[in-house]
Amino acid sequence: MSELFDRHRETLQRAVEAAHTRGYWSPYPEMPSGRIYGETAKADGEAAFQALLNAPFEIDQPTTGATVGKEESPYGFALGTTYPATDPVALVAAARAAGKAWAQASVETRVGICMEVLDRINKQSFLMANAVMHTSGQSFMMAFQAGGPHAQDRGLEAVAYAYDEMAKVPGAVRWEKPQGKQPPAVLDKTFKVVPRGVALVIGCATFPNWNSYSAYFADLATGNAVVVKPHPMAILPLALTVRITREVLAEQGFDPNVVVLAADEPEAPIAQSLVSHPDVAIVDFTGSRAFGEWIRTNAAGKQVFTEEAGVNSVVALSTDSFKGLCGNLAFSLSLYSGQMCTAPQNIFVPREGIQTDDGHKSVDDVAKGIATALDKLLGDPDRAIGILGAVQNPDTLARVDDARALGKVVHDSAPVSGGTIPEGARTATPLLVQLDAEDEAAYLEERFGPIAFVIATDDAEDAITRAAGSARTKGAITAAIYSTDESQIDEAAAAFAEAGAPLSVNLTGQILVNQSAAFSDYHVTGANPAGTACLTDAAFVANRFRVATVRRQGA
Amino acid sequence: MSELFDRHRETLQRAVEAAHTRGYWSPYPEMPSGRIYGETAKADGEAAFQALLNAPFEIDQPTTGATVGKEESPYGFALGTTYPATDPVALVAAARAAGKAWAQASVETRVGICMEVLDRINKQSFLMANAVMHTSGQSFMMAFQAGGPHAQDRGLEAVAYAYDEMAKVPGAVRWEKPQGKQPPAVLDKTFKVVPRGVALVIGCATFPNWNSYSAYFADLATGNAVVVKPHPMAILPLALTVRITREVLAEQGFDPNVVVLAADEPEAPIAQSLVSHPDVAIVDFTGSRAFGEWIRTNAAGKQVFTEEAGVNSVVALSTDSFKGLCGNLAFSLSLYSGQMCTAPQNIFVPREGIQTDDGHKSVDDVAKGIATALDKLLGDPDRAIGILGAVQNPDTLARVDDARALGKVVHDSAPVSGGTIPEGARTATPLLVQLDAEDEAAYLEERFGPIAFVIATDDAEDAITRAAGSARTKGAITAAIYSTDESQIDEAAAAFAEAGAPLSVNLTGQILVNQSAAFSDYHVTGANPAGTACLTDAAFVANRFRVATVRRQGA
Repeated sequence: MSELFDRHRETLQRAVEAAHTRGYWSPYPEMPSGRIYGETAKADGEAAFQALLNAPFEIDQPTTGATVGKEESPYGFALGTTYPATDPVALVAAARAAGKAWAQASVETRVGICMEVLDRINKQSFLMANAVMHTSGQSFMMAFQAGGPHAQDRGLEAVAYAYDEMAKVPGAVRWEKPQGKQPPAVLDKTFKVVPRGVALVIGCATFPNWNSYSAYFADLATGNAVVVKPHPMAILPLALTVRITREVLAEQGFDPNVVVLAADEPEAPIAQSLVSHPDVAIVDFTGSRAFGEWIRTNAAGKQVFTEEAGVNSVVALSTDSFKGLCGNLAFSLSLYSGQMCTAPQNIFVPREGIQTDDGHKSVDDVAKGIATALDKLLGDPDRAIGILGAVQNPDTLARVDDARALGKVVHDSAPVSGGTIPEGARTATPLLVQLDAEDEAAYLEERFGPIAFVIATDDAEDAITRAAGSARTKGAITAAIYSTDESQIDEAAAAFAEAGAPLSVNLTGQILVNQSAAFSDYHVTGANPAGTACLTDAAFVANRFRVATVRRQGA
Repeated sequence: MSELFDRHRETLQRAVEAAHTRGYWSPYPEMPSGRIYGETAKADGEAAFQALLNAPFEIDQPTTGATVGKEESPYGFALGTTYPATDPVALVAAARAAGKAWAQASVETRVGICMEVLDRINKQSFLMANAVMHTSGQSFMMAFQAGGPHAQDRGLEAVAYAYDEMAKVPGAVRWEKPQGKQPPAVLDKTFKVVPRGVALVIGCATFPNWNSYSAYFADLATGNAVVVKPHPMAILPLALTVRITREVLAEQGFDPNVVVLAADEPEAPIAQSLVSHPDVAIVDFTGSRAFGEWIRTNAAGKQVFTEEAGVNSVVALSTDSFKGLCGNLAFSLSLYSGQMCTAPQNIFVPREGIQTDDGHKSVDDVAKGIATALDKLLGDPDRAIGILGAVQNPDTLARVDDARALGKVVHDSAPVSGGTIPEGARTATPLLVQLDAEDEAAYLEERFGPIAFVIATDDAEDAITRAAGSARTKGAITAAIYSTDESQIDEAAAAFAEAGAPLSVNLTGQILVNQSAAFSDYHVTGANPAGTACLTDAAFVANRFRVATVRRQGA
């Protein structure tokens, strides 16, 4: 039926199976290794990235003729890459026109093309790592993984879910209803998956690929044309994604405008025009609560999926590895300088302290334990920047400054210097501030970046209630508990289930609460204000298409 | 696991299979036969209905102490049944409180209870037929089928879809990620389906059960407590449904307030208060475009599914059975006096006329052919009322009056009298008016009731374009074409697929465009303004629940 579908059939089948069983699986190796990606892959990726700097990005798509592009690497230099400026109305019109043939293509044709695109993106993982590193500020290793194979996993997962749901719609059916002694009533029916129209994917600056690929590939697989609106400070990774997709589309005989890039600059944003365009039927957005709310309010009648903001909590009640607790949390707070939507912010500790394998620990002891673990983890500058990466947005540093005044600073934030750290890199170690549960104004809002609080509560129940309550009312994407008491864990599990935050229990080793694995973890539940999308469940894909029917009287 | 689940397991499995294969299937016999439902079932149902008249409806649920109820049979008498009046805030609070244990119950427990409720409702199909007949005005046979077995089919279909999607979520999973020479990273994860909260189902007056059961049972199966707000003129069928459900819930140890009835009167509607209540997370609505739009606008952040209004079209281009065409359309226009959301309104015919097995027919001939078929079909008053039923709302008769002035009347509407037709029954045969395609103001809005238009178009293409165009812009739930030219049929299939209206081709026998069968037909595509819900696809159920996760570090 479709050569590309046949070529990737086995991978797709394994992906569908993995989406059902939800254990560990990935077809895209996460190690940036020459043995896997080719001995010259690292150098080739670096050279390809350098060639993109200070030059127009080559992409043959509708444009006003002007260019845009003001990306700056958080490691201290301007990218200088420029992109075709676009008129939102003309862009949507082009996508809509191209989408007609895409909608007519078979499910297998579209899925095959998505699989091929993912495969080609995978082969460009080193180039993508550079592009993600120098827009988001992630460390090279993280940019390789989260911008490369892990994002590709999320894309493939969405294709698998979409395929699974579309495959459920039978193509041709004979409906034959017995009529007693009369001949049966017969209708021959054909069913066809039809897309909703033009889909809009709005990316974020911290995880331009990881947070966009699920929607992008779900939209494409279900037959929608896609307008990609990257964050103005993280265009390059999605521009590369769009370009690779357009290459495959053109090779397969489709108008490449099935996917188009809508690049803009911070001073002249175009997202609102795109969201409001009547032909845009689906909007996926990752970003701020404020713009998320604007979209939810102004996109009435459209399918809207968001990942916005939240306040993630840790409840520390007791542990059989105090060292493990402190080390694990220090890593969670440090990874990408707290710029992950999954990073914890609030660490609730009962005022009377907690029992540990290392004896009783007061709230002060817990705060100090984490602070000490931070110092140990981040003592060497090269190791530190490998974990912290750089700070994507200068506003984040201002937020760190402001947060110092909120309570007792137990670990101050500082830039990282020395080692091989590049001149001009924008870095910051985590700020840890000790508070009382009363200080709700301080901790009950998202303070995005390397900012965390150790918060004394009345008791264990108060800790769980406050943590789950803030998830329910303010949103949360993750939650964690440390407890040696199974009944407390059960209580917390019920409270966080109701609050819509997945709960990690007693993580004292290498696995962090921040981590979310495609095919296994449901990322964002859609059940609290942190977002309406869940990566990935059936609800994420099932409403991106509809079913057209033709019924004919049977013989 | 669950006794009720085990009892109904085979039926559920067959329902899931039917939902996948989408051929004909039903476990609920549609014939109102004593051999099936018991020799005394008809008399028992009639007697049970009579006992409900002029009496308080017994249901032990939260109430203000006052009563409401102003239902009137379209066959000419007041029901006199009264229901407990409720305070919306107290009602939602009661449902929410009861919903906690319901949410904790296993999927199998909830699905088992839904299946048992459907089984008991099925056994009450004769009582339900009387309740539906004397609220909606449907004929007894139609009320039995559409208010009984066919509605039960839709409910079971929704349970099957919900079960299928929930069963996909694995309960416990070990995630084991290889780490090269190091031991694998291991997480033990548990996943649990959690509901969204309190769900609201707002019923309509014409198909109180058929249009509500999909949402009602999907909500219940996925763990949501349900507030049922019937149309004030069609409370009884849903009150019976709620009472039967509460009986089963109580027997199974649940707080029966998992489902509650929100009855009201036309002068003091409570639907807006319920929609706006912050604890209401899901709204399903069947009814007018105006209130549908209010809900879509005012229920931001809630899951909303609607079936509103549309303008259904027939395109008549050529036929090999002119008699079949006229007879089939006459039946479609007459069935329940055009009060079906699936009934055709606009019949487009090329101005030059059409080729038929009975020679060339002008537009006048086609109009006259349908008018003659109407007279033949409805000549005998008892047969007529068995097809037409009664007119639910007096406003519909006023609409018929107004429509007479819109063009050339080729079949006038008239009340049916004689035979055994009860005194005071509100009846009307179809009004058929001939128009030109220019008269858009006349035919481009829904004129609900026994009102239809034969509309002359420039040519075949104009007919298809206008019919599909009105579906896209005004909404449509059905569409039909008559053509002996396969390329025209293909053209229409593409146009109506894009317009989101299922197309019936060359129906000249007993099967009507109006009919929509559970397990096979997707009722409402969700792809045009006629509604956002589709009965039933994965999108209809998948977003009624979310998934809660607990992750523990593995050994």
